[in-house]
Amino acid sequence: MIVILHPNTDTASEVYREALSYLENLPGVQMRQHHIQGSEQKLTEIYLLGDTHKLDQETIESLDAVDRVVRVSQEYRVLGRHQDEHRASGFAYNGVTFNQNNLNIMAGLCAVDTPEHVEIMMRALQSFGQVCTRMGAYKPRTNPYSFQGHGKECLPFVFELAGKYGIKVSAMEITHESHIDDIHQCLEKTGHPTGVMLQIGTRNTQNFELLKAIGRQQEFPALLKRGYGVTLNESLNAAEYLASEGNARVIFCLRGMKSSFGSPHRNMVDFAQVPVIKRLTRMPVCVDPSHSVGSREKAPDQVLDVIHASAQGVVAGANLVLVDFHPEPTKALVDGPQALLINELEPFLEDMAISKETYDKRVKLWAKATN
Amino acid sequence: MIVILHPNTDTASEVYREALSYLENLPGVQMRQHHIQGSEQKLTEIYLLGDTHKLDQETIESLDAVDRVVRVSQEYRVLGRHQDEHRASGFAYNGVTFNQNNLNIMAGLCAVDTPEHVEIMMRALQSFGQVCTRMGAYKPRTNPYSFQGHGKECLPFVFELAGKYGIKVSAMEITHESHIDDIHQCLEKTGHPTGVMLQIGTRNTQNFELLKAIGRQQEFPALLKRGYGVTLNESLNAAEYLASEGNARVIFCLRGMKSSFGSPHRNMVDFAQVPVIKRLTRMPVCVDPSHSVGSREKAPDQVLDVIHASAQGVVAGANLVLVDFHPEPTKALVDGPQALLINELEPFLEDMAISKETYDKRVKLWAKATN
Amino acid sequence: MIVILHPNTDTASEVYREALSYLENLPGVQMRQHHIQGSEQKLTEIYLLGDTHKLDQETIESLDAVDRVVRVSQEYRVLGRHQDEHRASGFAYNGVTFNQNNLNIMAGLCAVDTPEHVEIMMRALQSFGQVCTRMGAYKPRTNPYSFQGHGKECLPFVFELAGKYGIKVSAMEITHESHIDDIHQCLEKTGHPTGVMLQIGTRNTQNFELLKAIGRQQEFPALLKRGYGVTLNESLNAAEYLASEGNARVIFCLRGMKSSFGSPHRNMVDFAQVPVIKRLTRMPVCVDPSHSVGSREKAPDQVLDVIHASAQGVVAGANLVLVDFHPEPTKALVDGPQALLINELEPFLEDMAISKETYDKRVKLWAKATN
Amino acid sequence: MIVILHPNTDTASEVYREALSYLENLPGVQMRQHHIQGSEQKLTEIYLLGDTHKLDQETIESLDAVDRVVRVSQEYRVLGRHQDEHRASGFAYNGVTFNQNNLNIMAGLCAVDTPEHVEIMMRALQSFGQVCTRMGAYKPRTNPYSFQGHGKECLPFVFELAGKYGIKVSAMEITHESHIDDIHQCLEKTGHPTGVMLQIGTRNTQNFELLKAIGRQQEFPALLKRGYGVTLNESLNAAEYLASEGNARVIFCLRGMKSSFGSPHRNMVDFAQVPVIKRLTRMPVCVDPSHSVGSREKAPDQVLDVIHASAQGVVAGANLVLVDFHPEPTKALVDGPQALLINELEPFLEDMAISKETYDKRVKLWAKATN
Repeated sequence: MIVILHPNTDTASEVYREALSYLENLPGVQMRQHHIQGSEQKLTEIYLLGDTHKLDQETIESLDAVDRVVRVSQEYRVLGRHQDEHRASGFAYNGVTFNQNNLNIMAGLCAVDTPEHVEIMMRALQSFGQVCTRMGAYKPRTNPYSFQGHGKECLPFVFELAGKYGIKVSAMEITHESHIDDIHQCLEKTGHPTGVMLQIGTRNTQNFELLKAIGRQQEFPALLKRGYGVTLNESLNAAEYLASEGNARVIFCLRGMKSSFGSPHRNMVDFAQVPVIKRLTRMPVCVDPSHSVGSREKAPDQVLDVIHASAQGVVAGANLVLVDFHPEPTKALVDGPQALLINELEPFLEDMAISKETYDKRVKLWAKATN
Repeated sequence: MIVILHPNTDTASEVYREALSYLENLPGVQMRQHHIQGSEQKLTEIYLLGDTHKLDQETIESLDAVDRVVRVSQEYRVLGRHQDEHRASGFAYNGVTFNQNNLNIMAGLCAVDTPEHVEIMMRALQSFGQVCTRMGAYKPRTNPYSFQGHGKECLPFVFELAGKYGIKVSAMEITHESHIDDIHQCLEKTGHPTGVMLQIGTRNTQNFELLKAIGRQQEFPALLKRGYGVTLNESLNAAEYLASEGNARVIFCLRGMKSSFGSPHRNMVDFAQVPVIKRLTRMPVCVDPSHSVGSREKAPDQVLDVIHASAQGVVAGANLVLVDFHPEPTKALVDGPQALLINELEPFLEDMAISKETYDKRVKLWAKATN
Repeated sequence: MIVILHPNTDTASEVYREALSYLENLPGVQMRQHHIQGSEQKLTEIYLLGDTHKLDQETIESLDAVDRVVRVSQEYRVLGRHQDEHRASGFAYNGVTFNQNNLNIMAGLCAVDTPEHVEIMMRALQSFGQVCTRMGAYKPRTNPYSFQGHGKECLPFVFELAGKYGIKVSAMEITHESHIDDIHQCLEKTGHPTGVMLQIGTRNTQNFELLKAIGRQQEFPALLKRGYGVTLNESLNAAEYLASEGNARVIFCLRGMKSSFGSPHRNMVDFAQVPVIKRLTRMPVCVDPSHSVGSREKAPDQVLDVIHASAQGVVAGANLVLVDFHPEPTKALVDGPQALLINELEPFLEDMAISKETYDKRVKLWAKATN
Repeated sequence: MIVILHPNTDTASEVYREALSYLENLPGVQMRQHHIQGSEQKLTEIYLLGDTHKLDQETIESLDAVDRVVRVSQEYRVLGRHQDEHRASGFAYNGVTFNQNNLNIMAGLCAVDTPEHVEIMMRALQSFGQVCTRMGAYKPRTNPYSFQGHGKECLPFVFELAGKYGIKVSAMEITHESHIDDIHQCLEKTGHPTGVMLQIGTRNTQNFELLKAIGRQQEFPALLKRGYGVTLNESLNAAEYLASEGNARVIFCLRGMKSSFGSPHRNMVDFAQVPVIKRLTRMPVCVDPSHSVGSREKAPDQVLDVIHASAQGVVAGANLVLVDFHPEPTKALVDGPQALLINELEPFLEDMAISKETYDKRVKLWAKATN
């Protein structure tokens, strides 16, 4: 059971103390508080665990500090929506807000190679007002003899360049808990010029020990990619591993599924499930068109399939687009074939803006129609 | 090899006779003519079969009647695009144009039940200016003991009501070649009040004998659904069965794939492949969101997943949307749970119009950007 | 509800007449009789349809002619086992018995090409005491421009050679109901030298109209291949289409599923489901290792994967093995790469005999262990 | 390129020194030695890395110490077979030999619960001459709120009981590199009463950091389960991660694939690929029928599907069977429904012996037939 207090309830207030005292004394029930700092308000949710099915919802809702009470189903206890469409979603990090209503773009390098390429990318992003990017340092590869990323060696110049060009958040895949420390220490050393979102790749979606390690720290939010060979339910449960350890700042990323049905695309694009994730959980939803599609093929309408897929995600409500760019795709060490070019950044951002407007227009249309 | 003549080349003209005479006399080569009547012009394509790899393309292109020559790859000989992005796509039927650029909506009943429901549906369609619908008379069902559709008994009232409400084209699934006759005879008897597009369902995508039978007739165009358990390539080859027998008026319909990855949707939505079909073939592309999604679940944004999927299809260039409506879904004999309601028709059409505008805007944006 | 009479109950007997008269007079219930001719006894089953849930099972079982009564679940009404492990399975055709306990081998040509090859094959079969084969005349092919089989042209020499070499049953795929007539007439004309089992291929598993046509005739038994892209339940329902129309002489054939998980095999071998089919239905179970595996690759133990798969099927209880041989695989028009060679026929048959002995031994072991 | 020395070549011998000296002086080539201790002989393989394509194979083969030279393809460099069917497979550990020719059974508890259950299991194993088992201490679970295993708390009693009942090797899943230390330390403390094979579960097949950690130690061999949502090739590459770090004592385990095609089994059994793994690599092949099938359903022949699947694996050459037993399945904390009962152990072992005999007989048959 989740007891949601009125927004901005002061923990020093009388009403807060009264509510807490009442809840603490419930027999057979344990209490855990979550404080969620949004960009405009602070939210306090109190989780009641244990023998909660006998509790009287109305009595608790009658407490002055309490806004409402939500009964929790077994699945996705922390991240789940639990039939309550008004629960807050998302979070703010390093000045950037991520939630189920807005849209951010994370265009960048799948794998960091040279400082020159990183700088070209970041300068371009800044010139179009972008404050997020993706920058891969650690790359898990199917074949043990393939290039595995530059690892922590590249972190200093990536962070410094991010700072120089006003990048607030870089999505960065990690494959081992020690990478959290690497990143933490390098940010310390470089004076925190930027922020990092820890990305968990599709091969590690069910690497529960890594998830728990990320869940135990509070410094960095997480971007969890869906497992490409498991059901949506299983991947959402993986997200819950992060939250169950204490870190509920999680974005869930669709990135295509392994299936011969998706050919000639590398994976089968799964972006029709954007609204499903919003219905089942409160996580902002990301789409990764680059790895879903995996090529620069295009239709006779001259629009790349990667870009059509991006628009499909956004027009159905995606909140984040993770997309590969590269100044010289033919020289990219990983996944060059699908990367967009720097001169495609401007129209890409415009396309995403058009698609987001369309989404908002569509939502408004249906709100009017169903009233 | 395909020799494409200049549009509207008169078969009585001197240039035509000269070209034909030249081509007829090529050694080891057979010739087959296709005349395609578009809404504004007539196109003549001459297929050269046999020993064509030795032919000199330039010499043929120098003939006065010839616009250009396209070398044909093995796959999708008739329907394929063969690297030529300018070949005409689509066709006109009973006054309605279907091609790779425009958008039609076929909203209607998955399974015809009563004349009353059919009339409510068609009246609503007319009131919003629609001239297409879907009307299922023959229903293939997994279980032999399930309701199999009213069959030819319902054709007379369906066609008469279609005529009454100005419906020009109804998509109608058939499962046996004798159904073509049923439909032909009933249209004869009722005085051709409307037109029919023969739909081939996903279970019959590789029922090659049925495809050949439909391919042999020229009266009705065909709407081929993708096989839900085979690759895209295999389903496109199935479409080629229709064309290889002489009927190239084919629309290809994405309808979701069988996969546990799609859950909680009934099937895994495959609309990211809309642009792929346009790249590989000249068929107009249809999406069927109702059978892909299979429920009336919705996101917290209050938009049904079925409708989000529809928008995703259109925003990436789909040319036809096949969608289930029903005046009283709870009484529908087949697939009630996913049907849209009559009062959702108006906003649905508006949503599709917004999505099509967005598609057009996006194409324009990229045309400008890549010039 | 199924009323099973004592074996060999004479339809002229008093006990039979008494039972029939009782059952005919049950209100709200319709009656349908099935007579099953086994190799040693005749079985009569009376299906009661309609308002059967109120009927008293004990009263019916007390009738003298009645052996026992089985309540029927919705699925697989005719072919299902319905929790009764003692119901008879299988049938005899043209002197060969097919049931859930024995084992037959159908080695032969995937696609008939020349009379010479057919004769080499049949002579070899006869020399090792085989009376069954597979002989494909009609071949459904993914690509419309591929070889589609010699069709009815080859039937006369196939049947005559079958007669000459003592072949009693040839499995022969048909793709159109008219092929039943072709086969019937050719057998008439050639004096019924042999018998035919109508095979339905994986692309037509859900071609319900074809299934109904085969179900309506009683002359030929049927071999239904599992659909390679649908669940087992859906394919078993397809088998029930045959039975619901009146032909319950059906063998169900596992032939591998489309899945990238099966690679490097052409399909993913599904023979672990042999016991499942026996649990759910009374159909004899066939395995097709050739199309499942699709190559002549072999392990370092020098045994071809195709043959390992065959043994896996039989050791778990398969009752029929459908397997491709060819005298000159490199000249085979269809599926040459996987065909076994004529000189592999003898060890193959010996391997299958060893595997069947092992199955019988295993069953005996567990019967003893669980008593 | 791999240079294989004659078996038991003494590293102090002249011929050895000569070979080494020659190889060390090859320009642009690095050298890495692998010493493999089998139960009867010691094998030395020298890997040449770098610019090896110009090396002359004949010259190297003419060195006295050299048995033969194998050119290595890119994939599965260490574990691969590289077209050489005579390379040694497998290894010995704690007195038990695991290779591609023999058969071991690892029957035991999926998840350790009480010392009593562990003791009942081990006593039964000893009474039937078994020296291997499976014992799960760390359990990765889809849902973070499910029971996750007793972890290192249960190791002491598990190891002591193993020692008491003569168990030489227990397969034990680990999910974090720290578990290697847990196990190492507990074995130290309890005086090494038994041995452990580190098992990597299907969710961690592509957890490359865990694989590398296991690959870096030499104390314990590894049992890698196939990833249930990736291709065989990808899982074999994961095995190569272990080997590339130095630990080539790896057994590869088939355990069924996620697919709706496998229903009603929990997963789709993939044991037809046993021979494929032997063809591509030198790893012993394990099958896990319990997690593949996932229930205690049985055919009318009274043999459980789990057991039929086991026999299918062994009859095609599997070298290890990992199978769940439990004294009281209804009380099992994890995966009770599929566990075999203690009184089924004896017939199970007998069934596996029959199946292995059948495999050997079949191999002999084909060896004779193809000579």
